[in-house]
Amino acid sequence: MSTIKLTLEYEGTAYAGWQRQPNRPTIQEQVELALFQITQENIPVVAAGRTDAGVHALGQVASFHSEKLLAPSKWAHALNRYLPKDIAVLKSEEVETSFHARYSAIGKRYEYHIRLHACRSALERNRAWHLRSALDLGLMQQTIPYLLGTHDYSSFEGPRSDTKTQICSISHMAIHQQESLLIMQIEADRFLKQMVRAIVGTLVEVGRKRRHPHELPSIIQARDRRTAGETAPPQGLYLVEVLYGIR
Amino acid sequence: MSTIKLTLEYEGTAYAGWQRQPNRPTIQEQVELALFQITQENIPVVAAGRTDAGVHALGQVASFHSEKLLAPSKWAHALNRYLPKDIAVLKSEEVETSFHARYSAIGKRYEYHIRLHACRSALERNRAWHLRSALDLGLMQQTIPYLLGTHDYSSFEGPRSDTKTQICSISHMAIHQQESLLIMQIEADRFLKQMVRAIVGTLVEVGRKRRHPHELPSIIQARDRRTAGETAPPQGLYLVEVLYGIR
Repeated sequence: MSTIKLTLEYEGTAYAGWQRQPNRPTIQEQVELALFQITQENIPVVAAGRTDAGVHALGQVASFHSEKLLAPSKWAHALNRYLPKDIAVLKSEEVETSFHARYSAIGKRYEYHIRLHACRSALERNRAWHLRSALDLGLMQQTIPYLLGTHDYSSFEGPRSDTKTQICSISHMAIHQQESLLIMQIEADRFLKQMVRAIVGTLVEVGRKRRHPHELPSIIQARDRRTAGETAPPQGLYLVEVLYGIR
Repeated sequence: MSTIKLTLEYEGTAYAGWQRQPNRPTIQEQVELALFQITQENIPVVAAGRTDAGVHALGQVASFHSEKLLAPSKWAHALNRYLPKDIAVLKSEEVETSFHARYSAIGKRYEYHIRLHACRSALERNRAWHLRSALDLGLMQQTIPYLLGTHDYSSFEGPRSDTKTQICSISHMAIHQQESLLIMQIEADRFLKQMVRAIVGTLVEVGRKRRHPHELPSIIQARDRRTAGETAPPQGLYLVEVLYGIR
């Protein structure tokens, strides 16, 4: 038996997220369906991040076990033949059988895209959060140091989560603007449900001068979702990379 | 009567190009339909470039005349309410009545995107030409000087064109690579039908070492479409900007 690690890119627009749900299209279902078409077996696939409806991935990682004798690198091309055009496997490789896409991950990198423009965009319509007024980038950047480090991020956790601990370590954050596109990058060992989107929503309120950067410590300490900002919409979010230790 | 200049962004994937055609969806039809919904008048709209099916625009320019008393900048928001999500007006402004989006233009800038990767992409599926093997970027860049300047570009003109002269002046070309995305930029006073795509197809053959950069002068001199390379597919092409003289 071999364990295969897949690196996946997808546009989340047409899907109810990664995780299988009854009667709704999901990315997990499409990957498992493609695997069935190759192997004639029902093989469960585990992903590093259970991305929400409308969220995209540039480097989602998924893993599965198979008895099929196929060269590890061939899985990518075989799956790409059966997957819909908005889901693509970028790489397939064999890993140790103990590898688990979610539990073996030591970190993840996300990006969030905001379009700042008086008019809506055609090409970015499903790929960025559209805001019509400028944001104070300097104030948003001043907020970053308060968010870095190891904290209980309950104030940034979405509803109905089954996580045992809310403690995460954010190791890196950056915000920059390229013309009308504002890009936020964030890296942590783990993320709570809708955590990036709640952080973005809070940062946007700072950028709109409705909150001050120095309010962040008390928001974090409150451990109460109602103290932080709104949840930014899903279409601006990209799972960029999943980090694993040296094998 | 006022003359309005529109700057448009669109994803060309769902359309048979800019220009109206019977029984096929076109961008011109959608813009004229939206104008009708605002004015209850049939107002013809002229565009700077008649982009082909599947070609995108970041800065197409279109113009029309109207009697309607609407502040020039308000047309953008009014049109965006009626236009489909894959077409957006970025700007509307009043110009002299002599302004004509096509005839007043003194130049255009296009970009062509090529994805160089062993696997297909989900997010770039309708937005780049996917090539699986690497191209020799240096050889492609060496080809640029031969293409610059004022020439008869008949060898790069698509079929069924109604143009009287094939003489164009290419003032700028550049090719650079950002990870797996190769971007070609080109600026000229005017472009023949499918000219950018024929140039890209020829450059790709140079990048594949099937042609030499120094073959370009004889290809241009031949004034015969068969001497140049294949026509690159439409989904990698973007009309970036239309240039006008100082008003």
